[in-house]
Amino acid sequence: MFDNKKPAAEEFPLDKLASRRRFLRDSAVAAAVAGTLAACKKAEGAASVAVAATLEHGMPNAAPTAPPSPREKADAMDKMHEAVMKAFPAKSEGKGNQLLVPRIDDGVKVFELTASEIQWETAPGQRVAAMAYNGQVPGPQIRVREGDRVRIVLRNQLSESTAIHFHGLETPNDVDGVPFVTQPPVKPGETHAYEFTVPNAGSHMYHSHHNSTKQVGLGLLGAFIVEPKKPRRIERVDRDYLFILNDGVHGYTFNGKSFPATEPLIAKVGEKIRIRYMNEGMMIHPMHLHGMHMTVIDKDGWPQPAPWKCDTLNVAPGERWDVIVECDRPGTWAFHCHILPHAESDHGMFGMVTALVVQKA
Amino acid sequence: MFDNKKPAAEEFPLDKLASRRRFLRDSAVAAAVAGTLAACKKAEGAASVAVAATLEHGMPNAAPTAPPSPREKADAMDKMHEAVMKAFPAKSEGKGNQLLVPRIDDGVKVFELTASEIQWETAPGQRVAAMAYNGQVPGPQIRVREGDRVRIVLRNQLSESTAIHFHGLETPNDVDGVPFVTQPPVKPGETHAYEFTVPNAGSHMYHSHHNSTKQVGLGLLGAFIVEPKKPRRIERVDRDYLFILNDGVHGYTFNGKSFPATEPLIAKVGEKIRIRYMNEGMMIHPMHLHGMHMTVIDKDGWPQPAPWKCDTLNVAPGERWDVIVECDRPGTWAFHCHILPHAESDHGMFGMVTALVVQKA
Amino acid sequence: MFDNKKPAAEEFPLDKLASRRRFLRDSAVAAAVAGTLAACKKAEGAASVAVAATLEHGMPNAAPTAPPSPREKADAMDKMHEAVMKAFPAKSEGKGNQLLVPRIDDGVKVFELTASEIQWETAPGQRVAAMAYNGQVPGPQIRVREGDRVRIVLRNQLSESTAIHFHGLETPNDVDGVPFVTQPPVKPGETHAYEFTVPNAGSHMYHSHHNSTKQVGLGLLGAFIVEPKKPRRIERVDRDYLFILNDGVHGYTFNGKSFPATEPLIAKVGEKIRIRYMNEGMMIHPMHLHGMHMTVIDKDGWPQPAPWKCDTLNVAPGERWDVIVECDRPGTWAFHCHILPHAESDHGMFGMVTALVVQKA
Repeated sequence: MFDNKKPAAEEFPLDKLASRRRFLRDSAVAAAVAGTLAACKKAEGAASVAVAATLEHGMPNAAPTAPPSPREKADAMDKMHEAVMKAFPAKSEGKGNQLLVPRIDDGVKVFELTASEIQWETAPGQRVAAMAYNGQVPGPQIRVREGDRVRIVLRNQLSESTAIHFHGLETPNDVDGVPFVTQPPVKPGETHAYEFTVPNAGSHMYHSHHNSTKQVGLGLLGAFIVEPKKPRRIERVDRDYLFILNDGVHGYTFNGKSFPATEPLIAKVGEKIRIRYMNEGMMIHPMHLHGMHMTVIDKDGWPQPAPWKCDTLNVAPGERWDVIVECDRPGTWAFHCHILPHAESDHGMFGMVTALVVQKA
Repeated sequence: MFDNKKPAAEEFPLDKLASRRRFLRDSAVAAAVAGTLAACKKAEGAASVAVAATLEHGMPNAAPTAPPSPREKADAMDKMHEAVMKAFPAKSEGKGNQLLVPRIDDGVKVFELTASEIQWETAPGQRVAAMAYNGQVPGPQIRVREGDRVRIVLRNQLSESTAIHFHGLETPNDVDGVPFVTQPPVKPGETHAYEFTVPNAGSHMYHSHHNSTKQVGLGLLGAFIVEPKKPRRIERVDRDYLFILNDGVHGYTFNGKSFPATEPLIAKVGEKIRIRYMNEGMMIHPMHLHGMHMTVIDKDGWPQPAPWKCDTLNVAPGERWDVIVECDRPGTWAFHCHILPHAESDHGMFGMVTALVVQKA
Repeated sequence: MFDNKKPAAEEFPLDKLASRRRFLRDSAVAAAVAGTLAACKKAEGAASVAVAATLEHGMPNAAPTAPPSPREKADAMDKMHEAVMKAFPAKSEGKGNQLLVPRIDDGVKVFELTASEIQWETAPGQRVAAMAYNGQVPGPQIRVREGDRVRIVLRNQLSESTAIHFHGLETPNDVDGVPFVTQPPVKPGETHAYEFTVPNAGSHMYHSHHNSTKQVGLGLLGAFIVEPKKPRRIERVDRDYLFILNDGVHGYTFNGKSFPATEPLIAKVGEKIRIRYMNEGMMIHPMHLHGMHMTVIDKDGWPQPAPWKCDTLNVAPGERWDVIVECDRPGTWAFHCHILPHAESDHGMFGMVTALVVQKA
């Protein structure tokens, strides 16, 4: 994706993205990326030197001749950086945050969520133990309208109990999802239904509220977006993007994926996009967009008294922030958490990194 | 407190809270909670399995028969969670943040604070070394009015020097409390008086400004609340609550206590409450209220240009934030820091957790 | 500087600051400070006791007689605290953030930045490996006006590749400074020029965007301030100060220096000052000013919808915040990060500490 000096418009037609992914699945580049990331994960100097040597000389087990010059060392490091950049967006197995279409039962929108233990690929070759709703990390996106009647049916196929809290929704107390406070825990093998009329609009979340440090860390979380009955003028956008931030044992992820397996945001020059940030992790993540500012409109689903501008927005655990970006500057713009060790190591960018690609119209 | 499926109104009459506390002091449940918390503190798998086995089988040293089934394991974990929940609000020794009534000396309100080294119980059975004003963690609450003349008399019974800074108050420089800048340190055995006219309204703090990482971490801190001469309409509330957040060697605490020894907030349906957050720790704490939003009115004692709404409010060290909650939804609502490892382990909720109990009128 | 009980006006004439620095360079006090800081850095009790013993008895190797009394221990600790306070502002080698005067090339303001590896002194006796632009940490201050044509010429004398990103500036994509996305990395020995018309006003930054966790952590960063064509009334100030916050392997620093080598802010009673905070580190830093509030006017160079007041401002990595302080209260006011372990140890204040000195007019 990141081919230097090519115009962005040619670079990112959406159909090409798909073919690039197919290519990467089978290619040696993907293997190199996986190796680089694995070495990075181990954080061992030895592994890193080996990878660098491989990339530089193509012969990992070759007998040493002369020690590398500074320029050779720099080139070796840069090749690792380049391999990761060029692999973006890398194919990985599984996709979270897919829109969940409800079935309608007598006017009630019914969403079925099955919690189970799975393997999840956060980046090429990086498979981790996960807990997931419907096999996705994050769980499927629930998207309804203010005033809808909804029923969320939770099937527990985990080996431990669980429960769902609808974070930000002003529901009646008996569907608040806190075991031993508003309900018994949902035991392994059991099913529990939460039914309520959707009260307040905005960018909200659903997640486990039982053994939650572990269960949310492993992936039992998702977006619960409530469209307002009367959208404000500022909400009329061309595209609507979502970042669920997480930072547990899965590493630093956007929507369950680490760079280069994160998804780019695509827009055309002149388009207005909305970005919804949701932090399900344990750390702050100040999100920095290159090249264009963000106009902050909502906090936790509530309008700010007046929109305000920034280029780096600090998102704390449990918070949601909605911003608007007027995509008036063509190019491929880096977009990442600005805690630098969440985004780059000496092996190149990783973790909380993606790009906003503004294509010429 | 957290008896599932009982209506909140019956659940939390204030006189019942007292009798529950008496019960807990003597009961086996309290012992189980203490044991659970101790095991949690050790964070040792072995201890945790032992506690689980005790809860499940009632015979900690029984000869093993068959390995537990997944359902038995889930039940064992859930019993630990339930024991902690049901213990809330648990009795513990000592209560911080008690209102300090001044003596009047020729029109000056005189507050006497004695700093000393004590043992403090943060949760049942959890005793820690502390430094305290008047034997309380947090120290007693100082509450005055804008324009009052006050004298704070500090008696140092610690084994090291100390001093008091009035954080947020715009005092004259000579009572700012910074050793070697505005005063000499107050040596062990010495007494020092700070006298000034209270300048600015709002939610402020007092704390040690000498060897402060240690002294504030151990408890030398308290609330200094200044009522305005002319309260705004938005400040007219039915109840006024305060959270002092801390996260040092005492663990994750609200007003010096960890769940289940934290105090619930009580309100009746239709009441408006004010909550004052003050962070005396070293980490951010994004405070999340279930079921109802918070309207943010003040930052560091200064009105925000316009009130704004949220359900998760990030409170950084040294900050104070004042919010209003319109208690329009009956029930027992979980209320906690949303950095999940500050609030829940696999042994159940702990640390920065409490509840807002909205009783039917 | 911090001589208790002397009026501030006499204390801080600017010419005296210079002579104090000359004094410190040669003095035994500076040596004591360096020793104290070194001991602090090691964080070894043994070293600390030795330093304390030296300060107390003047004879580090004296045969022990009686164990010290509590008062003697308190006095020993206080002497370490005092030595650091009295050393402020301590002389150290090197000064970052010096205004860089451009040469004019056919109407273009040309700024030359040479990146190289140097030794940097963060506090007396604390020398660290650094990467620096023009031998400064932070790099020299670039200060231009909205609409200026600028060329930034980067010469890479490092042993690894690098690149510059102009953080917050809405530049064309091809000068955005992200290797393999908008340009090739600038190899050791190479030179690269970034030329653009300065788009948006405000407090921005420039820093490495290659191997950035390491390179920014080691000092490849600086302020890029863009003065607006039409300043707002609220921007008319008497003095304009800047804090670049960092927290990597160099320790906790303001503008590349740790207390007591940080620079004081000086103002006269009645003056209005502007302070620009920029966080280039990996952690939040809630900046607390004693005695006077701050009025927040800008976030990331963009005006807030309405100014708002606080005394503790949380600055997250990548963020910039501009505030105004009306210096109406004479005295020497402590000014520090309120994460206390970033500002004080049992050896006294260190790291992210300075003072705002308001002199009587």
